[in-house]
Amino acid sequence: MSLATHELLLLRHGESQWNKENRFTGWQDVGLSDRGREEALNAGKLLCEHKFKPNLVYTSVLKRAIHTLNSVLAQMDMDWIAVEKNWRLNERHYGALTGLNKKETAEKHSEEQVQIWRRSYSTPPPLIDFEDPRHPRFDLRYQGIDAKLLPRGESLKDTVERVKPFFAEWKNKILNSDGNTSTLIVAHGNSLRAMMMLLENISEKDIVEINLATAVPLYYRLEGVDLKVGEKKFFGDAAEIQAAMDKVKNQGKK
Amino acid sequence: MSLATHELLLLRHGESQWNKENRFTGWQDVGLSDRGREEALNAGKLLCEHKFKPNLVYTSVLKRAIHTLNSVLAQMDMDWIAVEKNWRLNERHYGALTGLNKKETAEKHSEEQVQIWRRSYSTPPPLIDFEDPRHPRFDLRYQGIDAKLLPRGESLKDTVERVKPFFAEWKNKILNSDGNTSTLIVAHGNSLRAMMMLLENISEKDIVEINLATAVPLYYRLEGVDLKVGEKKFFGDAAEIQAAMDKVKNQGKK
Repeated sequence: MSLATHELLLLRHGESQWNKENRFTGWQDVGLSDRGREEALNAGKLLCEHKFKPNLVYTSVLKRAIHTLNSVLAQMDMDWIAVEKNWRLNERHYGALTGLNKKETAEKHSEEQVQIWRRSYSTPPPLIDFEDPRHPRFDLRYQGIDAKLLPRGESLKDTVERVKPFFAEWKNKILNSDGNTSTLIVAHGNSLRAMMMLLENISEKDIVEINLATAVPLYYRLEGVDLKVGEKKFFGDAAEIQAAMDKVKNQGKK
Repeated sequence: MSLATHELLLLRHGESQWNKENRFTGWQDVGLSDRGREEALNAGKLLCEHKFKPNLVYTSVLKRAIHTLNSVLAQMDMDWIAVEKNWRLNERHYGALTGLNKKETAEKHSEEQVQIWRRSYSTPPPLIDFEDPRHPRFDLRYQGIDAKLLPRGESLKDTVERVKPFFAEWKNKILNSDGNTSTLIVAHGNSLRAMMMLLENISEKDIVEINLATAVPLYYRLEGVDLKVGEKKFFGDAAEIQAAMDKVKNQGKK
């Protein structure tokens, strides 16, 4: 039986240009806003203050996560650490909604429909066609991945399914490590909710009520071979974090 | 027989804080100067202008190279590409000279001695002790590497020997690739001279006369299973590049 302790830090990227413009982003590769860069700096400072030192680092293949991670690693003076960039950690794919403004979509389709697309567990957005030039298979970064695995639009449920193989590999890796591990994952609202769900056995009903604010570090201490959650906390000011989470929740409203 | 073409781009990092202060840097993990960041941006622009698109990317475990690479990848909109950070691509280890100003060292030991330390092929600098806290084995980033492999100070010859296993692995990888490859390596004056030497069979006598300027992309087109150099050129303005190389050569003078 493993007596090792495994730390896990989940970090959503800082505000992106499209978060700022309140648009559905998904797999669109949008950069950080000035505020997002500030948030990334603050996240890095919080990790330093809490003396968090990863030995395993993962991110998505989207630059808003990668740039946030680069900023955090520079703050920690750990630029040298190996980074795995994994497409399975990408944001939920928003299909044909990608690029649309959330308020405008609410006005066009109804606020209820947008809330369903954004917050139901298993309703996917309108899908893009396999032949559509926006299909991920035409993007250089997804070459080498079986095109049938690549999404044309995802519900949160689909995202969870896509994250599962990553979660299993990561779990296997840390449980077979020699001693304690400390993992940093910088990714996206929905891929991180998938990680939380798999880690904490959160129900479909409960996960849709959870909102992750940008660049607020979420820390877990996990114990034993079943990775029981021994400790779970956000780094930072509690009131500020609550306000930021509420803001995410209200984005789809008119 | 392989008919594939292999591109290779060697890029020395932008000016670092210690390049600017004219100090022996070696394995000291010093960041870029403002000018170095500018140079990295320019290098990225040159790679875009020449439509250079890597599918294999390597750098050292030192932040002046990593930050230069990050800047170049952002310019190319290729943040998503996998990056191997390899300690074998580190700068030459300057032993007990690390941190000393080149001019002051010339005044203390003679200009001739500094030129020997800087430019002879096989004379190492004064070594640091295995028990010295500055020994790389005490640095987290070199954990997992056999301490006997880690340098206490290196001649260019020692650096070439250290780069050799990387060169062999890379060569093996591209020759076993399915089709053409395009490699980007962002590293350091001496590890890149080692790469050039191994690639072009440059003699010990000739390599000491070659100087690589910061952030000037050096492009090779390599052909066949012996990686014959089909084309070799710098990207950028020829006169500016020559001036920058002459400047590197004259750094050790009083």
